Amino acid sequence: MNLRLIFLGTSAAVPTLKRSLPATILQSPTEQWIFDCGENIQRQMIATKISFHKKTKIFLTHLHGDHILGLPGLLQTMALMDRKNPIQIYGPLGIKKFLVCCQQTLKSELTYQIEINEIIKPGIIVEEEQYLIETIKSNHTIESYSYAFEEKPQLGEFFPEKATALEIPEGELWAKLQKGETITTPKGKTINPHQVMGPNRQGIKIIYTGDTKPFDTFTTFANNADIIIHDCTFDDTLTTKAELNGHSTPSQAANQAKNSNAKTLILTHISARYPYTELLLEQAKKIFKNTIIAEDFYTLNIPTPTSTNNSTNTAPSINI
Amino acid sequence: MNLRLIFLGTSAAVPTLKRSLPATILQSPTEQWIFDCGENIQRQMIATKISFHKKTKIFLTHLHGDHILGLPGLLQTMALMDRKNPIQIYGPLGIKKFLVCCQQTLKSELTYQIEINEIIKPGIIVEEEQYLIETIKSNHTIESYSYAFEEKPQLGEFFPEKATALEIPEGELWAKLQKGETITTPKGKTINPHQVMGPNRQGIKIIYTGDTKPFDTFTTFANNADIIIHDCTFDDTLTTKAELNGHSTPSQAANQAKNSNAKTLILTHISARYPYTELLLEQAKKIFKNTIIAEDFYTLNIPTPTSTNNSTNTAPSINI
Repeated sequence: MNLRLIFLGTSAAVPTLKRSLPATILQSPTEQWIFDCGENIQRQMIATKISFHKKTKIFLTHLHGDHILGLPGLLQTMALMDRKNPIQIYGPLGIKKFLVCCQQTLKSELTYQIEINEIIKPGIIVEEEQYLIETIKSNHTIESYSYAFEEKPQLGEFFPEKATALEIPEGELWAKLQKGETITTPKGKTINPHQVMGPNRQGIKIIYTGDTKPFDTFTTFANNADIIIHDCTFDDTLTTKAELNGHSTPSQAANQAKNSNAKTLILTHISARYPYTELLLEQAKKIFKNTIIAEDFYTLNIPTPTSTNNSTNTAPSINI
Repeated sequence: MNLRLIFLGTSAAVPTLKRSLPATILQSPTEQWIFDCGENIQRQMIATKISFHKKTKIFLTHLHGDHILGLPGLLQTMALMDRKNPIQIYGPLGIKKFLVCCQQTLKSELTYQIEINEIIKPGIIVEEEQYLIETIKSNHTIESYSYAFEEKPQLGEFFPEKATALEIPEGELWAKLQKGETITTPKGKTINPHQVMGPNRQGIKIIYTGDTKPFDTFTTFANNADIIIHDCTFDDTLTTKAELNGHSTPSQAANQAKNSNAKTLILTHISARYPYTELLLEQAKKIFKNTIIAEDFYTLNIPTPTSTNNSTNTAPSINI
């Protein structure tokens, strides 16, 4: 899949002039996945020309106001724009009650179906043809979840010259092979896809932690991730405060990325006390060099991994 | 009072890049009054350096999402900033249920008291030493209210030379006269304030309509207003749509201002379909010349009215 990440809100609890409240969107050409819906997400979407009609799934990490108060307005604006496509929402117990109450107050009528999935048991919560989404309990002050977007292994490159050499006529049989199906040639030869295609390409794996302090099961969950988007509310000198409030520091996030064998670390949920983030970046880079501090509207086109075998993930690091 | 109006959000149902959702604030040096709390009001307040701690009253015209979805986040941010000052909220029945539900979902704790006043009977809902706030049912698609901020008549100018001529010693007796009290001089003369002071100055009157189509009782309610801030969602060619959706056009708003003998008309709640507003302004100005189209962050320092008698309001028009 061609994937693109856009950071719509990168502040912590309180917005600043430069940072809106937490919201991140991952897009493919046909679908989009929103992680957290901080207040003002709808206007950030307008600013980045993100569709209100496209196939969309929304994932909420927890029910603190800075992460969900943009949701009712987003849903209402989608209705005002006459959305027809249903929408799925995932997150902790309580979302349904909140949205029902908002809808009753606002007396708004939606033009599309909403399917609310309150997480009872973490694990794989979405499985589609090309990807799955997994969740794990994280470690904040209230019930909270981290999410993993995992693209399934992609079929390798198709080599037309190999197909021609094997006397497979171009057309339907080529298409079947490209979909991974075994075929029989007009001359009765059985051909497996691996005879005309390169090795499978590892899928992209992206982790969105939400608000959390470090927790033990994270490194397994995030193992070999291409990108970890990590809470980084306070700098290292405020580690005690971070612990108390269920947040992470740059060093903690960097250690999580290092121990997970991740390729890229993107720090977000930056406290309003940091108008400049050089300090945070410096603290993280001492431990994990390939670190980025997210800014609002920071956009990352994610390179498609190159061919690989299944035992290692050799997707290229993102150059920063 | 020295009063200042700041438009924090001037869009209609959906925000645009230039217009945030409805919110307007009136400020004096010691107090502030917020009319509607559209999503993102807290960030607009940060942008305009408006205090989260000052004495504040909030007035909601109705419970549509575009007018109230900024309220929970605003209240939460005030708590995060450790506000201690209590806050009063006024508006239609349903606010309390909405805020209780939000607070239960967000599990947020406030650091200050909230007093919610659901309007049962329109009329004067606030009366303070220097001003009162009156409300009237407006004419939208759901229960909705317009508000009037009315400064009480201010005492006239004090003339020291008159006091001296009447042999009143400077000090406590001057102060009493300046407060409007009758005094007795050391020589036993009774002096009324009007002997040493100019005529009373008429107070400022500001109307905030909220979403509404024209309604009969408006002109009495808004009579002689210095400023009418009026719904202007659609232009005159969409009068039928405006009627259907409970909104006003420029001509309708201008007629309301003209018939109320108002001094200045400010149009707001502008539909996202108007990136340029020349058409709206032109339509209004044909009927009421002193019209302004509000933009986000448009700020108006309201001139103090000059001395006047009580029968007419001769506060100067605002030059535009």
